[in-house]
Amino acid sequence: MATDPLPVAQELIRCASVTPADEGAIAVLERALEPLGFHCTRLRFGEIENLFAIRRSGGNGPHLCFAGHTDVVPPGEGWTHPPFAAAVADGALYGRGAVDMKGGVAAFVAAVADAVADGTADRGTLSFLITGDEEAEAVDGTTRVLDWMAENHLVPDMCLVGEPTSKERLGDTIKIGRRGSFSAEFTVHGIQGHVAYPDRADNPVHRLARVLHRLTAEPLDGGTDWFQASTLQVTTVDVGNPTNNIVPAKAFARLNIRFNPTHTAASLEAWIRGILEEEAPRHEARFSCSGEAFLTEPGPFVDALRRAVRASTGEDGALDTGGGTSDARFITRLCPVAELGAVGTTMHKVDERTPVEELRRLSGLYGAVIRECLG
Amino acid sequence: MATDPLPVAQELIRCASVTPADEGAIAVLERALEPLGFHCTRLRFGEIENLFAIRRSGGNGPHLCFAGHTDVVPPGEGWTHPPFAAAVADGALYGRGAVDMKGGVAAFVAAVADAVADGTADRGTLSFLITGDEEAEAVDGTTRVLDWMAENHLVPDMCLVGEPTSKERLGDTIKIGRRGSFSAEFTVHGIQGHVAYPDRADNPVHRLARVLHRLTAEPLDGGTDWFQASTLQVTTVDVGNPTNNIVPAKAFARLNIRFNPTHTAASLEAWIRGILEEEAPRHEARFSCSGEAFLTEPGPFVDALRRAVRASTGEDGALDTGGGTSDARFITRLCPVAELGAVGTTMHKVDERTPVEELRRLSGLYGAVIRECLG
Ligand SMILES: [Zn+2]
Ligand SMILES: [Zn+2]
Repeated sequence: MATDPLPVAQELIRCASVTPADEGAIAVLERALEPLGFHCTRLRFGEIENLFAIRRSGGNGPHLCFAGHTDVVPPGEGWTHPPFAAAVADGALYGRGAVDMKGGVAAFVAAVADAVADGTADRGTLSFLITGDEEAEAVDGTTRVLDWMAENHLVPDMCLVGEPTSKERLGDTIKIGRRGSFSAEFTVHGIQGHVAYPDRADNPVHRLARVLHRLTAEPLDGGTDWFQASTLQVTTVDVGNPTNNIVPAKAFARLNIRFNPTHTAASLEAWIRGILEEEAPRHEARFSCSGEAFLTEPGPFVDALRRAVRASTGEDGALDTGGGTSDARFITRLCPVAELGAVGTTMHKVDERTPVEELRRLSGLYGAVIRECLG
Repeated sequence: MATDPLPVAQELIRCASVTPADEGAIAVLERALEPLGFHCTRLRFGEIENLFAIRRSGGNGPHLCFAGHTDVVPPGEGWTHPPFAAAVADGALYGRGAVDMKGGVAAFVAAVADAVADGTADRGTLSFLITGDEEAEAVDGTTRVLDWMAENHLVPDMCLVGEPTSKERLGDTIKIGRRGSFSAEFTVHGIQGHVAYPDRADNPVHRLARVLHRLTAEPLDGGTDWFQASTLQVTTVDVGNPTNNIVPAKAFARLNIRFNPTHTAASLEAWIRGILEEEAPRHEARFSCSGEAFLTEPGPFVDALRRAVRASTGEDGALDTGGGTSDARFITRLCPVAELGAVGTTMHKVDERTPVEELRRLSGLYGAVIRECLG
């Protein structure tokens, strides 16, 4: 009989692990995994608790890593059932993280228990990359665990991230990529003066208008096979000049770009710097990237995931690259990575919940993934 | 012997006639002009005292009007001699309005006294259009007196405005035109949304960038024989969006245009409205014009002024259209108008002053103008 993911999911939800707090969540996993033959390594970076757990097969079978997080976003107010009580009501498990993604982590633990019991786990290596820093800055989490894994020659052959990717029905969507997110802000300097004597002034608003026109006049690209076109949105322009007879001294703008793998943060920065140099040589600019774009091209790993989805759920497992960023953007540096998990409708909302039956089906889906990947 | 303008200049300065106050300034002129044969009409509009004074010759000689103002800008602090004391020190008359333009008004009164005495005044008609509302809004001043003059068939053949046009030496500059000043402000509306889903939003900043680019990409014109090119300056753009993942709902901009007679306020408004309609149909816009451009093409009147300048001062009387606006912008509707007056260096400043000797030479210059215009 299949292992029930509900008890571990409830134990995890009862830890109020709003980033960066752990509140015992990592220990719940250590207690669950060690009896299954996993070697657990706690990795504390900054104030964050992370966990790498690995169960090696004797042979040269493939290494499948499950990546997830135990931290959650703040619960907010107005819950029907307390957010850290893990109540089951009307067949649903309520709680912050039920969907994103303590439920997913528990489902994978249960799937692994079954795989150990029936011997599937012995056909290869299974590991868990669990972080407590996914929902906030993500600087002391997955990216640092990956560095540690690389140093210790623990790089997997493939990685499944348990984010809630399903849109309406479990298994309807597999994410094989995400757009990157890049931000820029710049102040363009001019020379203040009177509007009646513009030859003695240098209007930074006009320079900024040329910069913004060049940045927004043409699409950044035409999209790719797997991605929609990259998009640039200027979110604010501010001068704050109260006087209509004075040419201001400076003008500020900020923008965000959601980009596909046609671009990188470095290429976008170079593009913007080039336009600024040409149109507004006197400027200050700051750039930041909260995640590069990534794509795992369809291939053996993605094929295995789709076979697992079809066999386990009957869904099609449509390949998708939409939505925000996830820790998969870091993992893509090391190995093929894709995301597959629960129906995400209630994630980050009040009354986050998953039907218990669906949680059990997710465990079954992950069991099929283990069979396909280690098979 | 020539009439001395100093006593009337001092009497006028001693009236603290900061707009809209009169403080007896108009009465000073009535007392000076009535004995010279002028018929004086007080014209009170709103809270403003204005004066029209006319001395008709018997025949059909030309009608020269002198236009000026008795109001002054506030004195500010830090004067060497009190701003309304009209002290003479080191050969200079100190006081608010000494240059702009109580000194000029007194100089013309003295010139008229001489012209009456020597019979020149009898070769035509002389009049004074004096307002107490030039330095502020200019709504209850010259423009309303002009309406009254037109209704009463008192339109002159030519008009001299006594603004301090001289740059370094008395008579070096005659203004025959001024650029207009036009302002626009508009709010462009879009649809707020998340930067990751720009297809569901409509970014007003991008629309505004297109509008501003079209407004600033090309010069408004190439200038004219008498004017430099018109100029447009965007003075502010404000969105005030603190969040870099939200497309804002609206964006605001304000601009000012200094324009030559190639344009009118109406043509500029139509041009901007056209671009807004095309690039940002959902917008609110406000337009205002503090003065249309005007030009008195060189001709008999301007020639007469230059002859007077050369004969009286030895200067060249260079024709100029620079600087801000003056009441000449209203007078141009009725007759040829030009501006000629004192050296303006200290106007609107602390310790505004004129050398008494220069004030007397200004009176001589205006005497030459009367002779040339009525000759
Ligand atoms: Zn998550
Ligand atoms: Zn003035």
